[in-house]
Amino acid sequence: MDSNFFHTLRKLLEKLPGIGPRQANRFLWAMLDFSEDEQKDLARAIAELPNHLRRCTTCWRAFSVKTNAGEGKVCSFCLPAEASAKAGWANSKRERNKIMVIEKDNDILNIERSGAYSGLYHVLGGMIDPLDENPIVRERIKKLYERMGKNQSKCEVILALSPTKTGEFTSNYIAKVLEPLAPKITRLARGLSTGVELEYADEMTLRHALDNRK
Amino acid sequence: MDSNFFHTLRKLLEKLPGIGPRQANRFLWAMLDFSEDEQKDLARAIAELPNHLRRCTTCWRAFSVKTNAGEGKVCSFCLPAEASAKAGWANSKRERNKIMVIEKDNDILNIERSGAYSGLYHVLGGMIDPLDENPIVRERIKKLYERMGKNQSKCEVILALSPTKTGEFTSNYIAKVLEPLAPKITRLARGLSTGVELEYADEMTLRHALDNRK
Amino acid sequence: MDSNFFHTLRKLLEKLPGIGPRQANRFLWAMLDFSEDEQKDLARAIAELPNHLRRCTTCWRAFSVKTNAGEGKVCSFCLPAEASAKAGWANSKRERNKIMVIEKDNDILNIERSGAYSGLYHVLGGMIDPLDENPIVRERIKKLYERMGKNQSKCEVILALSPTKTGEFTSNYIAKVLEPLAPKITRLARGLSTGVELEYADEMTLRHALDNRK
Amino acid sequence: MDSNFFHTLRKLLEKLPGIGPRQANRFLWAMLDFSEDEQKDLARAIAELPNHLRRCTTCWRAFSVKTNAGEGKVCSFCLPAEASAKAGWANSKRERNKIMVIEKDNDILNIERSGAYSGLYHVLGGMIDPLDENPIVRERIKKLYERMGKNQSKCEVILALSPTKTGEFTSNYIAKVLEPLAPKITRLARGLSTGVELEYADEMTLRHALDNRK
Repeated sequence: MDSNFFHTLRKLLEKLPGIGPRQANRFLWAMLDFSEDEQKDLARAIAELPNHLRRCTTCWRAFSVKTNAGEGKVCSFCLPAEASAKAGWANSKRERNKIMVIEKDNDILNIERSGAYSGLYHVLGGMIDPLDENPIVRERIKKLYERMGKNQSKCEVILALSPTKTGEFTSNYIAKVLEPLAPKITRLARGLSTGVELEYADEMTLRHALDNRK
Repeated sequence: MDSNFFHTLRKLLEKLPGIGPRQANRFLWAMLDFSEDEQKDLARAIAELPNHLRRCTTCWRAFSVKTNAGEGKVCSFCLPAEASAKAGWANSKRERNKIMVIEKDNDILNIERSGAYSGLYHVLGGMIDPLDENPIVRERIKKLYERMGKNQSKCEVILALSPTKTGEFTSNYIAKVLEPLAPKITRLARGLSTGVELEYADEMTLRHALDNRK
Repeated sequence: MDSNFFHTLRKLLEKLPGIGPRQANRFLWAMLDFSEDEQKDLARAIAELPNHLRRCTTCWRAFSVKTNAGEGKVCSFCLPAEASAKAGWANSKRERNKIMVIEKDNDILNIERSGAYSGLYHVLGGMIDPLDENPIVRERIKKLYERMGKNQSKCEVILALSPTKTGEFTSNYIAKVLEPLAPKITRLARGLSTGVELEYADEMTLRHALDNRK
Repeated sequence: MDSNFFHTLRKLLEKLPGIGPRQANRFLWAMLDFSEDEQKDLARAIAELPNHLRRCTTCWRAFSVKTNAGEGKVCSFCLPAEASAKAGWANSKRERNKIMVIEKDNDILNIERSGAYSGLYHVLGGMIDPLDENPIVRERIKKLYERMGKNQSKCEVILALSPTKTGEFTSNYIAKVLEPLAPKITRLARGLSTGVELEYADEMTLRHALDNRK
């Protein structure tokens, strides 16, 4: 019964990104040394998390539920401009004719920080990996299809998945799925990233950098 | 009120070892994607942690409270052999005339795994750092003093703190504090660790390795 | 006199790429343990290097002097097709309307290995660095200008310098120098390199990847 | 004939420690860009190296031949005190009753820099590796045996080989070889090196650190 307690707690901690058994143990000891109040606060905050943080039912990014705008189901990016303005939200001016498909919330953080993009997003929550299927990803791609179906001709879909094998695979899959809707589909350009040494650039990167030279 | 919620939760997560703001954000998103049951289980387990995991009031290592042996306050290493045997615990045969002073629970894990030691421990919960005082450490050293006071002549105290500046400082401090009790105080030997290249060994390590050659 | 010997030898060894004082010492000891024949062979080979390896007086890449084709002054890439064919060289089919400007011979190795390019090169031998001026680089840019002057309208110049600060600076400088000759000047595309994680991509890379999406 | 030239030169360069094919190529290009004088100086210096740097016929460390003291065959450490003083050398005061067996010249540099040792050395020039036999090492061990034979009872032999598998193997072998001469044989102490974290120390290091505690 008791070893069951630790087993369950460790397994849950190991579901956090980057946490293995060793780190999970460290977390146990660290939480043991929290003050009684801190322990209670942490437990309570985790229990209440779903009341404060949700996934937008349109773009699936995590957003903090501050007001009842959009009935608390739609994030400030996706809320129609009018409703957004009424709620006094800053993001009412995002470009609504661009949807960037990204893997995870952290990617959005990085892109928003760069200031290079001001359109909408669609968060997959992972990649399609034939060897380790994550049902959420296909579900989210289906949702993207439905989302496109409503205003297909108006939107550009920007596939912004990391240029890895599963990223390429997932991009190709999405391009195929959306094809019947005939939207404009683009991909982030491949080429030389800042700081890459030509001497060590891989073949694919060199080819892309040459083909897209300008 | 709401930004307060996230502020509090992030600060608590950042108290976990190795977790910074970026990782804390990732944890929020990961916990958001937990199933409802998983969220509740994690919150409940953290709230109940003090009922299952405690610090031994003798040696201060974390131990899981399985029975009421020792009134649930003393770990299986420290429980008197008789009571330990009665409770059916495996560790009744530890050498009770050796107390190894270590910094943290993880160190015990590593030492127990090596099988090189079968005495008792005393966990400091940190080092004495003049620039960043942690009151727990001095408190635990005081407890060690009291612990020694009860059976001073019988015990060897092995200072097993990492050979860093704060480690050396803390070892010297403890040696001085325990001196009036005149116990046998030893320190883990300094020398060449496995795999160290002589060519890159630092001066102190070379001196220790030479002085203690045999 | 003698310490002078070692001083001179060490300074020469430290001119080799990636070799510091420690490594120079190691080289001395290693060469000391060479057999007498090996020591002589190495000395002789270095003395004879200029007879076997030269810089092409057109593109400045290093080439091994095998025949007297081009009077031993022009590499197989730059030798006119006719003369090249006569000499029985394989490279007579390189595209002569493309000149890729690169920093160093190693870059050529990598590009040739990729098979993505079959034009000509122009090796700068470094970057323009205002803080650490290398006269060779400006001299080679002047030579490029003269080279372009002879057949300006026919050639595309591809600036293929690493996307670093000095690389950008040097590319801008060359573009300005060649402008009066009005050739077609392109640059390798910037974007996501293989394996880059979107989450960690820098702002410039994200901007380029977005601007050049297709 | 010509490809033979490069093949030979590259193979010689790859005999230098840490130099692989890629780095050997870079060296070729770098030497090509040396001035004519530098090329000649480097070739000449390498050819003359044996006149300036030799291995001591007693301890086998590399030493620079400055005078004819010891007929230019014995280093300043090994030259008898009287002859050393006559030659005006600084090292006449080294402790002649200690011989430290080390793997390579770089180890001596590090030990001398530490100032922790002022005895004599014996350089093996490698380790005994059953899978990759280096005849020099066994030859040098034989020389050590002969060296000990002349003044066996007076000397302590300190085995100071890195605590790796081949280091342990070689130390054991030497200890066995020297046993009939019955000298005092010691080994550098094993234990915690500076900066080692107890949490990550390996089992052997922990055992040594515990066994040698004091």
